[in-house]
Amino acid sequence: MKIYETTGFPNPLRVRIALAEKGATNKVIFVPVDVMGGEHRTSAFKAKNPDATVPLLELDDGTCIAHCNAITEYLDGIFDGPSLTGTSSKERAVIAMMNIRAESGLMNAVGAYFHHATQGLGPDLETWQCPDWGSKQKEVAQLTMTYLDGVLTESDFVAGNRFTVADITAYAGLAFAEFAKVEIPENLRALRAWRDRVAARPSING
Amino acid sequence: MKIYETTGFPNPLRVRIALAEKGATNKVIFVPVDVMGGEHRTSAFKAKNPDATVPLLELDDGTCIAHCNAITEYLDGIFDGPSLTGTSSKERAVIAMMNIRAESGLMNAVGAYFHHATQGLGPDLETWQCPDWGSKQKEVAQLTMTYLDGVLTESDFVAGNRFTVADITAYAGLAFAEFAKVEIPENLRALRAWRDRVAARPSING
Repeated sequence: MKIYETTGFPNPLRVRIALAEKGATNKVIFVPVDVMGGEHRTSAFKAKNPDATVPLLELDDGTCIAHCNAITEYLDGIFDGPSLTGTSSKERAVIAMMNIRAESGLMNAVGAYFHHATQGLGPDLETWQCPDWGSKQKEVAQLTMTYLDGVLTESDFVAGNRFTVADITAYAGLAFAEFAKVEIPENLRALRAWRDRVAARPSING
Repeated sequence: MKIYETTGFPNPLRVRIALAEKGATNKVIFVPVDVMGGEHRTSAFKAKNPDATVPLLELDDGTCIAHCNAITEYLDGIFDGPSLTGTSSKERAVIAMMNIRAESGLMNAVGAYFHHATQGLGPDLETWQCPDWGSKQKEVAQLTMTYLDGVLTESDFVAGNRFTVADITAYAGLAFAEFAKVEIPENLRALRAWRDRVAARPSING
């Protein structure tokens, strides 16, 4: 199978970490997409993914799976190793909920700030911006950081006491926040300590 | 278990349909939340769901599951009946992807239009609005309708040839669009025919 991605971008990072956690990085062919050159918006790429986003998973039968959560669902299902999305219905639901909170409240909020309230990827790619929306989403991202700090005061990881896809999403969200200069509010010690623990995992540090 | 919800609202509708498809509506106690009166923003409700959204599933052990996709994950796992979220890894991934497209491109886009570019739920509840963002999201919703029409020209349902959670999300998105006066573009015959077929299902029409 192939994964179309752009090295160093925050959403591709999520899938890279998931693959590494499953010990499956070498089971995939990575195909670079020149997002800065607009390749993701060509008709050739949009035939595979009309959303024009990376990463994109293409199976050997030609099926294309877009969006990190759908890709991780597939990778987690077919590869061995600790489950990232949960096993029991209750565990799966809790992980899904916390992953949604990390995605909409942090990853996507930072993305909205970056693309709408800063120069983002530059004028050729940022063809419509809404600065007021972007600025508000920076606040949302920082409120989510505060929320996650509270969660991590009471549990070791974002969705309980083991590492899951919700940690991957939150970690990539913080990495994007650092890049976009969305500061972690002062005194969020549990969040910072968790980030350091996650950064030291072999899937990220290895 | 309990589901906190507000009758007639689009996201609670998604969980109502999922329960009915599983034949499990009578397995749940519904607890009304007075969203128009601001009950979802009280500290009592936010202790259960800091996102201040309905629907919210509360299990008998006190675990609270917010957000439709997480709730449906749980309900689909514990109740018999046809799977709404898929069984094989590939099927689960395709359904997840199409559900994300229906949610972000239609349901959430209509919601953003409604809450930001119209009076929404009124001035007491719409404390921050961004009309430019809302107007743009109406365009996004209509582009997604056109995309879904293309999908439904080639398959019976949104994520293949059987009814899944992606159909529930898209159907509730169209219901919300009708309420918010986001018109379905002319000539989307496959989308309209699919909507009529879904509306006639016992889970909705029964």
